[in-house]
Amino acid sequence: MAKKVLIVFAHQSSASFNAAAKSAAVEVLTAQGCTVEVSDLYAMNFKAAATAEDIKGDVKDAEHFRYQEETRLAWEEGRLVEDITAEQTKLTEADLLIFQFPMYWFSVPAIMKGWIDRVLTCGFAFTGEKRYSQGLLKEKKAMLSFTTGSLESMFSSTGINGDMNVTLWPIQNGILHYCGFQVLPPQIFWAPSCASPEARQTMLEGWRSRLQGLLEEKPLSFISLDCFDPKAFQLTPDVQEKHASQEFGLTVGIHLGKPLPPQNQMKAGC
Amino acid sequence: MAKKVLIVFAHQSSASFNAAAKSAAVEVLTAQGCTVEVSDLYAMNFKAAATAEDIKGDVKDAEHFRYQEETRLAWEEGRLVEDITAEQTKLTEADLLIFQFPMYWFSVPAIMKGWIDRVLTCGFAFTGEKRYSQGLLKEKKAMLSFTTGSLESMFSSTGINGDMNVTLWPIQNGILHYCGFQVLPPQIFWAPSCASPEARQTMLEGWRSRLQGLLEEKPLSFISLDCFDPKAFQLTPDVQEKHASQEFGLTVGIHLGKPLPPQNQMKAGC
Repeated sequence: MAKKVLIVFAHQSSASFNAAAKSAAVEVLTAQGCTVEVSDLYAMNFKAAATAEDIKGDVKDAEHFRYQEETRLAWEEGRLVEDITAEQTKLTEADLLIFQFPMYWFSVPAIMKGWIDRVLTCGFAFTGEKRYSQGLLKEKKAMLSFTTGSLESMFSSTGINGDMNVTLWPIQNGILHYCGFQVLPPQIFWAPSCASPEARQTMLEGWRSRLQGLLEEKPLSFISLDCFDPKAFQLTPDVQEKHASQEFGLTVGIHLGKPLPPQNQMKAGC
Repeated sequence: MAKKVLIVFAHQSSASFNAAAKSAAVEVLTAQGCTVEVSDLYAMNFKAAATAEDIKGDVKDAEHFRYQEETRLAWEEGRLVEDITAEQTKLTEADLLIFQFPMYWFSVPAIMKGWIDRVLTCGFAFTGEKRYSQGLLKEKKAMLSFTTGSLESMFSSTGINGDMNVTLWPIQNGILHYCGFQVLPPQIFWAPSCASPEARQTMLEGWRSRLQGLLEEKPLSFISLDCFDPKAFQLTPDVQEKHASQEFGLTVGIHLGKPLPPQNQMKAGC
């Protein structure tokens, strides 16, 4: 069946490598019969700040405004502003969400963080009970596709920027997996601005080739919600016991004081 | 000598716990003779998105706009817009920078990411040669002070959110240490919204008490730039050899495939 893809795109220039990566995705996925929608955040002048203006009508507690609580309520009552609901509608229809961006300061650019802060509201993307492997978006897939300024060697466990797996954990676990998304391995374009035009072309060819089978790829491994006790959210004793003799921890974040499983945030099955 | 402190503050409400933590810092540090400046990002309606409008006059390459390159040039030529230069001036004068915020999605709120993306420009905060322990802001201290939505137990190496040290690494290493800041241990207010008024008061008292000696605290440990070779930015063979028999890696990110040093991003001397 034809799939729907939403690309959330954050680069200021249509001549950029990021724009070329976005266009490659649109082209290859469309050729496969997918319907592809692009949210071009800079072109949309997308609002980044999480404010009371995100809610139509009165807020519940104007004196002590709490963003998460107020937007949860507004979501329930259909009182979120149009730019948020438009993105939520696109996401509701999508089978796959791709974030395409240049890494800024070991994370997404502020305008994309604004999309995350404002669109993935409580009630829509998760609740206190429905999160991680039970997150409300668990039928969907999501992935990061990004460029770095640094070379790959610098993002290793002996390199100056440290292990890329560590840098990816808060985003892939704390945002994507938290909402339930099945997280596909990231597409990392290492320092295209330092590469020759031929090398950049090769990177894009690699992406086009990956896109052919992207929708059938196996997602990264995270730990199921039912491995944690429902009060303190600690790994249950039987899970801990079962892994006591293992060489590596379970994930980058939930590592049990052991070495991190290598490439845990980069490859499926790690 | 009297010190100068800049607090970059991101909460929408003056009745919030974050506002109380900010006010406590202003009060206690001022009483010590410090000059305290606050950048209240929501009140300032601080622009978050990194765009060509951040540069006065013509950009170098309008066809293919590259933010880092264009802002580096604009910084050299005094052509950055006033809201950026105003923050840079405050930061130039400051001895200590405190980020006060509620954690949003395992990171800073978008409006604060915008301050980071736009104010810490190449040339002002770092260059290709002057970064990490040689970063241009290395005479200054910086720290994170934030609230979480989750309990402390959930942010452990056996908890559902994973080890808080992993979550902090990209911010404390990739932003603060990258610019050279001496990074003070974070002040973490665990889930004040789930706590009783008395428990919240106790948290604030703890912060007030810590603030008394904050400026004399020992910073977190990071690895000196000269431990890396200057081409591939890998730990030099002698550093790797020296640590071969150690139980733990050097930092959360630069862990050499070993267990992470416990509390490395939380306490000095780890």
